[in-house]
Amino acid sequence: MEGTTRMPNYSPKEFRALSWHDATPAFAQGSDTPRAYLERCLGTIAEREPVVRAWVVMNEAGAREAADASTARWKAGKPLSPIDGMPIGIKDLLETRDMPTQMGCKAYEGNFPKRDNAAVWALREAGAVVLGKTTTAELGGSHPPATTNPFDPARTPGGSSSGSAAAVGARMVPAAIGSQVGGSIIRPAGYCGNFALKPTQGGINRGERQSTSMSTHGPHAGTIEDMWQVAIEIATRAGGDPGRLGLFGPMTTPEARKPVTLAVMEAEGWALLDDTSRNAFETLLERLRAQGVTVLRKGDNPQVDALEEALDGIQVLTNTITAWENHWAHRNLVNTNPDGVSQRAKNTLANAEKLTPADYRSMILRREEIRLRHAATAPVVDAFIAPASPGPAPLWPGDVPGQPLAPRPTGDAVYNTPSSALGAPVVTSPMTAVGGMPMGVQLMGQPHTDAAVTAIARWMVETIEPAIG
Amino acid sequence: MEGTTRMPNYSPKEFRALSWHDATPAFAQGSDTPRAYLERCLGTIAEREPVVRAWVVMNEAGAREAADASTARWKAGKPLSPIDGMPIGIKDLLETRDMPTQMGCKAYEGNFPKRDNAAVWALREAGAVVLGKTTTAELGGSHPPATTNPFDPARTPGGSSSGSAAAVGARMVPAAIGSQVGGSIIRPAGYCGNFALKPTQGGINRGERQSTSMSTHGPHAGTIEDMWQVAIEIATRAGGDPGRLGLFGPMTTPEARKPVTLAVMEAEGWALLDDTSRNAFETLLERLRAQGVTVLRKGDNPQVDALEEALDGIQVLTNTITAWENHWAHRNLVNTNPDGVSQRAKNTLANAEKLTPADYRSMILRREEIRLRHAATAPVVDAFIAPASPGPAPLWPGDVPGQPLAPRPTGDAVYNTPSSALGAPVVTSPMTAVGGMPMGVQLMGQPHTDAAVTAIARWMVETIEPAIG
Repeated sequence: MEGTTRMPNYSPKEFRALSWHDATPAFAQGSDTPRAYLERCLGTIAEREPVVRAWVVMNEAGAREAADASTARWKAGKPLSPIDGMPIGIKDLLETRDMPTQMGCKAYEGNFPKRDNAAVWALREAGAVVLGKTTTAELGGSHPPATTNPFDPARTPGGSSSGSAAAVGARMVPAAIGSQVGGSIIRPAGYCGNFALKPTQGGINRGERQSTSMSTHGPHAGTIEDMWQVAIEIATRAGGDPGRLGLFGPMTTPEARKPVTLAVMEAEGWALLDDTSRNAFETLLERLRAQGVTVLRKGDNPQVDALEEALDGIQVLTNTITAWENHWAHRNLVNTNPDGVSQRAKNTLANAEKLTPADYRSMILRREEIRLRHAATAPVVDAFIAPASPGPAPLWPGDVPGQPLAPRPTGDAVYNTPSSALGAPVVTSPMTAVGGMPMGVQLMGQPHTDAAVTAIARWMVETIEPAIG
Repeated sequence: MEGTTRMPNYSPKEFRALSWHDATPAFAQGSDTPRAYLERCLGTIAEREPVVRAWVVMNEAGAREAADASTARWKAGKPLSPIDGMPIGIKDLLETRDMPTQMGCKAYEGNFPKRDNAAVWALREAGAVVLGKTTTAELGGSHPPATTNPFDPARTPGGSSSGSAAAVGARMVPAAIGSQVGGSIIRPAGYCGNFALKPTQGGINRGERQSTSMSTHGPHAGTIEDMWQVAIEIATRAGGDPGRLGLFGPMTTPEARKPVTLAVMEAEGWALLDDTSRNAFETLLERLRAQGVTVLRKGDNPQVDALEEALDGIQVLTNTITAWENHWAHRNLVNTNPDGVSQRAKNTLANAEKLTPADYRSMILRREEIRLRHAATAPVVDAFIAPASPGPAPLWPGDVPGQPLAPRPTGDAVYNTPSSALGAPVVTSPMTAVGGMPMGVQLMGQPHTDAAVTAIARWMVETIEPAIG
């Protein structure tokens, strides 16, 4: 696992992700401490960061102080929560009172609001150790940071939650916070061998970051247990978005639950899958059927087919809605600081400025209809299953000066925009590997079934052998 | 109208509010200019501000520059919009790139984010002259600023949009932006003789200010025409909140429309009305009936009664929802700056911290049921009519050191929390006067009927003689 160029050789059987929940019994017994755990994380970071480049800034002194306080609480038998002492990375879109928030954007260089985002505040209340800010594609869009994939530095870690996914994949931290508006949690998590939850829309309080209708905060983690625990600890303290029911469910990871019926979501991504990726996914479906799970395919059920039909064009719809929702803020930013924003973001802005409020209303109403079609599948489908991306992380050699900008430098969100548009919860698990690289498999449920989807993912992880392509 | 202590003597027949739309024909003809209009506003401010204290900060140089640019556009026959050149005040909760945003809160002294809120950005795009920041009760809550009522300095102007309401009432500007989460637009507008629109929830893009589920931005204005024009110019440029349909309707003030049926909304405020206020309101109802409008009262219609029944306790429900939604941010602020927040805000926070996420979910579900009851009145009611407050602006002598804090220093929001909870549009008009002070009369419609409610208000203003109590 040194940070040097080599052939990808990720193996889901051999890769041991960093786990927090496995470590806490030793904190209670006194044979290990959160401070020692943090020092091991810092050791891994020292080793891997020069190539992975997952972090924008770290507060090591603050983290050590917080880890010592946590150590004392575990010693006294009074941890604030099961994640008391957990070193965690925060995507650099979220404000932190002790570190700048620069959003991967030149125009925000040195931006330092000195307050915590709702989720960051809740994590500190739960005792978590906010170690640093992880890189993001510019403003959560597609213009990439310098971060590399921890399993092959020639490839993208995905985006926009690039640093959070890479830090977890590189075993630097057991968990990190990402955010998704198109495909910014699930895709990079899949590329980097993470577990991750994109909650039901509104599930986790976004605090000041509510400028788009499809964005969510969510945890990346090495294990499904840590993934759930981080999410529920935040939601218990800061709640969901204002006016939403918020994430709810058990205070520890839901018990594994075998699904009766899964439906494959092909969406616009199916045609883009290469043979190896598709075969790996089909192998996984076979193993699910062998366990007695009914797997619905296109043509098997009219409600599922009606949803698939409506998902045609969902990538453009989702991206266009978001571009409109960002347009006033991005125009404001570009006017104030013309050189502070990438050409990629400016191109998106120019397209958004061709739209009218009436266009936006039409898109919102179309999205509402697609949500109704998803709701109509609830009686027959426990969850939809799909690849987390149309293949493993693509190579990313960087933009070539003088050449047109590469359209998808952090990979293709085609398998992520459906759940974003539907406001539906998704869990991705590292259940396939293709060409020596991880590829995520996602499960998507109805809104507010985050715990049930996690239970199904847990069953899958504990029961089914990952498929290698 | 000098700023000196005297007996209140507001008369709706004699009071001439400042109008912008009446002035623009002269800009087109060249006999007046936006710059000259601005100078007249600055003259009024110089005269009245020492007593009214409506402004936190002004950018006179920037305003003069913007007014000159507007003057040139009108001269060239190319104004950006009908409000090009309009001097406007911005409630100090909304960010402005050229002035600090201090939110009436010591902890935010000197806070200067150097960006425009969505609505401010849209106003500038429409050519409006952002003259200054108007005072707000602390953080949009109840702890009052030093602003006095322009019709009697011994009384509150209302809150939390204290400065916006007072500046319009004092004829300092033709319009100002306020915001409401409980009763912060409609009540102060009513106390200060303004017209004001609290749009359908989500009607005007709140930009970064989306931390609560019932807050809206809205215009205060001297005339109903300027009120509508400001709202529609913002919504056309920055849209509504993400995911919402946004305010829509004609690009000039809707034509007057006589309603068939109005229903009186008694809610929790009826019992609090003094005889004079109630009599003035009843006189107005008589005048409406004399024009052939059917006025439903309690007992006349089962759907209206079912809504009234559900509104019992709405004041507490609304305030508790908002307190919960603010709790993480306010705790964060108090922990960071313990002396920077008032005792009033700390008391609210302490109550909110007794709640759980499950309590919040119950409240949101109850609110949803009340919204359904409101929807059920749509077939029989064109709009609800009610006083904008349970009487005219109360006296406010200030807190007395050593005594318990006065509970409602900016007046009682009992007549405002229903529409906030319902997410329903409201227009208030200065249609009654009690004891020489203005008292607003509000019309409330179904969500997305902002234009229809404005049309009914316009008909009322043009047809019915205001009632004096």
